[in-house]
Amino acid sequence: MTYTFVLVHGANHDGSAWDRVITRLEELGHTAFGPTVRGHGPDGAKQLSHTQSTNSIVDFIVERELSDIVLVGHSFGGSFISKVAEAIPERIRRLVYWSALVLQDGEAPIDAAPPSARQLFTQLAAQSPDNTLLPPFPIFRELYMNDGDVELARIVYAKLWPAPFNQVIEPIELKKFYDLPTPRSYLFGTEDMTMPPGEWSWHPRMSNRLGLYRLVQMSGGHELFFTNPSGLADKLVEAGRD
Amino acid sequence: MTYTFVLVHGANHDGSAWDRVITRLEELGHTAFGPTVRGHGPDGAKQLSHTQSTNSIVDFIVERELSDIVLVGHSFGGSFISKVAEAIPERIRRLVYWSALVLQDGEAPIDAAPPSARQLFTQLAAQSPDNTLLPPFPIFRELYMNDGDVELARIVYAKLWPAPFNQVIEPIELKKFYDLPTPRSYLFGTEDMTMPPGEWSWHPRMSNRLGLYRLVQMSGGHELFFTNPSGLADKLVEAGRD
Amino acid sequence: MTYTFVLVHGANHDGSAWDRVITRLEELGHTAFGPTVRGHGPDGAKQLSHTQSTNSIVDFIVERELSDIVLVGHSFGGSFISKVAEAIPERIRRLVYWSALVLQDGEAPIDAAPPSARQLFTQLAAQSPDNTLLPPFPIFRELYMNDGDVELARIVYAKLWPAPFNQVIEPIELKKFYDLPTPRSYLFGTEDMTMPPGEWSWHPRMSNRLGLYRLVQMSGGHELFFTNPSGLADKLVEAGRD
Repeated sequence: MTYTFVLVHGANHDGSAWDRVITRLEELGHTAFGPTVRGHGPDGAKQLSHTQSTNSIVDFIVERELSDIVLVGHSFGGSFISKVAEAIPERIRRLVYWSALVLQDGEAPIDAAPPSARQLFTQLAAQSPDNTLLPPFPIFRELYMNDGDVELARIVYAKLWPAPFNQVIEPIELKKFYDLPTPRSYLFGTEDMTMPPGEWSWHPRMSNRLGLYRLVQMSGGHELFFTNPSGLADKLVEAGRD
Repeated sequence: MTYTFVLVHGANHDGSAWDRVITRLEELGHTAFGPTVRGHGPDGAKQLSHTQSTNSIVDFIVERELSDIVLVGHSFGGSFISKVAEAIPERIRRLVYWSALVLQDGEAPIDAAPPSARQLFTQLAAQSPDNTLLPPFPIFRELYMNDGDVELARIVYAKLWPAPFNQVIEPIELKKFYDLPTPRSYLFGTEDMTMPPGEWSWHPRMSNRLGLYRLVQMSGGHELFFTNPSGLADKLVEAGRD
Repeated sequence: MTYTFVLVHGANHDGSAWDRVITRLEELGHTAFGPTVRGHGPDGAKQLSHTQSTNSIVDFIVERELSDIVLVGHSFGGSFISKVAEAIPERIRRLVYWSALVLQDGEAPIDAAPPSARQLFTQLAAQSPDNTLLPPFPIFRELYMNDGDVELARIVYAKLWPAPFNQVIEPIELKKFYDLPTPRSYLFGTEDMTMPPGEWSWHPRMSNRLGLYRLVQMSGGHELFFTNPSGLADKLVEAGRD
């Protein structure tokens, strides 16, 4: 059986992050799209609301008349797919959170980060010219790309975009989400350090909020679409299939 | 060196669950048996006591004059092998708990489950015609078979049997077990979700009760005898050898 | 890019433990040294202070005029490399802690062990003729070598040396260490049981003390230089590179 994947990147990336993942998914017979979220990536408008960004994904799906989709969210992208699921649940076959935010109703994305990270993010945004967020290279190299070499880390870092900080601190209403019957999976790279292991970890802290969900794990860090795109694609299938 | 394995299934399975594991163990030169526990599987008598079920394994071992055995318990089967070890410790070379219950003296199996699961099990048994327990398919597919595809999940689900609920709520006396010097190992599939990750996880919650024990881990979920029987056999050797 | 590794063993080993790791590192084009720490291994003087042992590593590095090194500490060796880093930070490119102690300022190594282990270590030292520590074989086999077979466990055990207990209970001053900017990594074998999983685990308990660090994980136990020397070397490169 083959599936239609819509892959939603997180903060700092654009849709091209999925390029090699899509190549592999297509080799396996699946269909896959990696749209760039509005207000992110090369989009110069860095002050859009979370709702405006979410709507760009909804529009992408509706305009292409995609249905029965496996909707994947990476990292910050988890906050988008929960809202997309509220907007067009009838088009979604399964939600896949890959080291992604699973927010509670009324929680802002920044609330999910440990106190030290919250402080760092706030400082970085304050120091930026346009209230945006970009992790310094040493943090990116050690915590995001620990499973890659430094040359790859530099190549990927050069492709990052500052992310709109206003969305990071915006409380997200999720009144409908927790009543949706949509099947859901959580994919976790066991060396992902963008949330610290222990009390503040992605899994099981975020994942256990999903109720009944399927866990899929693989080795690797936060940037598997660059450090192991083919392996990531295989695990997205494992997470996304019925 | 080769070993004699006696493999004890958990609730809902019968001895045939081990068929492909036994094939692999025999290929490696070992001897292996996978008896069906009385009161479980095709046995129509679903109201036997935990002691009666345990005795069927003791009888199986004694009648065949098996000694120096590696006694493996899976899931609920952990509660049986602890009692078998109390009954015939002189015949057991090593105990292997594979994602299995390690009960404390006087604890009922259901006490080891998180509160939400206890409530679900009680409801399922009450709704059954004969006070038995069978997980609904969506739970089986997501929490037991997360590492397999849905076709395999359906095939395995069709082979399951309702399990006697009276054994699930029966307090188990284990006065002798915690004084036994029998070497013991714990084998854990790192994606096993039948106990939720965190406070209620199989490992290290159950495993650490064993005192000095050998930990063996592999990737996969709760039904590795179907999703990776050969890999499981290899890890059972790693767990079961001296 | 190639690196110069200085590999510091822990208690009970000597420098020869690294032999096959060094072979692999050299195959990959790196340079690697595995000195025996003074007061450890065949050195008959088992009452040297922690500082005297540390100084033997400092001397080894300085005498050979090694610089830009990746300094690796295994287990107890973690307590040495933190002190070496205080002494000659200008020679160290990166610190790698492999299932190793990351002590807090003023903490003794024994403080990092769980209460039951502290008691056992104290008894073993008291029973020894010369206030030294050597784990009994059953503990070594189950907790240190759980990923190897018993024949290999016996071979490695026969190579162990009693370790000076006075260093285990000596509080270590680390006033400068926590201000050093030296990059650091933590390598963890996911089946390492020499610290029990949970509250007292190596990772993330010890690792999170490092501040910003790179996590690298691999499967295996505490004696990977014997159970998987080539795989360990590959992961030391992943941990040690820029």
